[in-house]
Amino acid sequence: MIFLTRRCIVCGKPAIINIKYAHAAFCSEHFKKYYERRILRTLKDTKFPGGKILVALSGGVDSVALLTALTEICDELKSEVEAVHMNLGIYQNNFSSESMRTSNEVAKMLNVKLHIIDLKQEIGYYIPEIISKNGRNACSICGLIRRYLLNKFAFEKGFDWLATGHNLDDVAAFYLKALASQDIESIIRGLDVLTPPYHEFKLVGRIRPQLYITKMENRAYVALKKAPIVEIACPLGKKAKLHKYVKAWNFLVNINPVSQLNFVKSINILRSKIVKSNINLKKCKICGYPTTTTDSICAFCRLINKLKDKAK
Amino acid sequence: MIFLTRRCIVCGKPAIINIKYAHAAFCSEHFKKYYERRILRTLKDTKFPGGKILVALSGGVDSVALLTALTEICDELKSEVEAVHMNLGIYQNNFSSESMRTSNEVAKMLNVKLHIIDLKQEIGYYIPEIISKNGRNACSICGLIRRYLLNKFAFEKGFDWLATGHNLDDVAAFYLKALASQDIESIIRGLDVLTPPYHEFKLVGRIRPQLYITKMENRAYVALKKAPIVEIACPLGKKAKLHKYVKAWNFLVNINPVSQLNFVKSINILRSKIVKSNINLKKCKICGYPTTTTDSICAFCRLINKLKDKAK
Repeated sequence: MIFLTRRCIVCGKPAIINIKYAHAAFCSEHFKKYYERRILRTLKDTKFPGGKILVALSGGVDSVALLTALTEICDELKSEVEAVHMNLGIYQNNFSSESMRTSNEVAKMLNVKLHIIDLKQEIGYYIPEIISKNGRNACSICGLIRRYLLNKFAFEKGFDWLATGHNLDDVAAFYLKALASQDIESIIRGLDVLTPPYHEFKLVGRIRPQLYITKMENRAYVALKKAPIVEIACPLGKKAKLHKYVKAWNFLVNINPVSQLNFVKSINILRSKIVKSNINLKKCKICGYPTTTTDSICAFCRLINKLKDKAK
Repeated sequence: MIFLTRRCIVCGKPAIINIKYAHAAFCSEHFKKYYERRILRTLKDTKFPGGKILVALSGGVDSVALLTALTEICDELKSEVEAVHMNLGIYQNNFSSESMRTSNEVAKMLNVKLHIIDLKQEIGYYIPEIISKNGRNACSICGLIRRYLLNKFAFEKGFDWLATGHNLDDVAAFYLKALASQDIESIIRGLDVLTPPYHEFKLVGRIRPQLYITKMENRAYVALKKAPIVEIACPLGKKAKLHKYVKAWNFLVNINPVSQLNFVKSINILRSKIVKSNINLKKCKICGYPTTTTDSICAFCRLINKLKDKAK
């Protein structure tokens, strides 16, 4: 956020933020309004029907901005909003303790009900133990566990939607990396603003309202709303590979500020034109949640079984 | 082309070229073989059936490399190869005269029959006159005229295929620009290694055998084959917009050498999954060549009519 000589396009007061790709500058008050309207419009463009929303709150800037904005616009969305924080037990650098403390503070400030999932209570282990028992990449295991447990929790508690804080920078880097690696499956699976629920398979709907909003805007919004955030990066995270593509986007956005937004929208339009081959969803023999594996045991149950075997 | 301490992966002699994205280095002899094999394999992968090929020869590095390689492998392709050069009449910087001279030299060296299309003879004007009479962008008008006349010439002379020298750098920049501008139509239309003929609509087949080969490789190949090329850039060309994306690719290829090839292949795979909406081809009322315009007058005939009107 840089103080500029530009003026707010709404009221003419000195602007505190310049959104280059939108050719717009705003004062503090009108930026907050603009941000919330964009979240609202992004969801309304998908014909979001409203319902009970559970926000996955990590305590980081994106999810804090998301929860804050959704509480402001929930009436217009015909929605109720609650949040869930997952304790992953990563105590190095105080990562998990600070994330939990911040999430509690945010929920209290916003007067939002906060649910806690404690990973050890849920499956017997925290992330560092799982990683040490299992050779796989930390981020991929952690992602698998979070996706599974967040959906399960939301489904069992009767939520209609799980909301996550994917931002434009992340998604643009994800798609560019996938294209540059010929990872066609990831592109086709992709990331949409709204993925409808599939009750028969115990899948709640997914919303990603910040898909077309940059991290810089999320940062500005939480700062102006005076919401606390945790600034500690996950000590297990190795974002090196995606990081290269984030740098590539810095280069491209410098050339053409709107290129990143257009790029993600273009990919999503192309994806929508691809007749999705019928994904053969089956119910996992063990837990009943969906899977596509040939032996009908989902990746989560397979991981749990492996951990149990190693504990013997 | 830099002399390296690396060794040729085929014979172990000192390498003269390092193809980073293929993790391969070659001596002069084996690079030439490698280059020709890649052109051959690229075409064979599309099930190219052979036939009479007309190469559009500008005299620049890409088309000279293409003609040179195709004459080496034409027996294996079950093909006959001839070339056509179009005199555009752009005499600033000796552009058209040098292009013509070089094209003649190349054809003579390769013992290939060279056809000449003289634009003034064909339609009454050279490019500079057309541009001065017509407000549109020089490259877009010139492209329209060349596409039309090259297809017409190939069709009337009984060629099965028109071959053009699109290289990987150009196509990668074209796709990145289209994605970054939400130009979905250009992406879907796209550029394939092979576009089949459509005889009913007087369209010859199109082949772009260098679609997955970089300009650097084309340069190395013509240098090693001692083929003359014209090094003068078209004085009317304003490649500024695409140039930005060429620079972006320089950045990305530095991060990941194979990213450019993967990117173009990914886009072409995605395109192949999009059920192409039936393009309503119609025959132009004036010339009988295909068009999609509502009044059934093709863009070429519309341009010619405009030029005639202005001449009155």
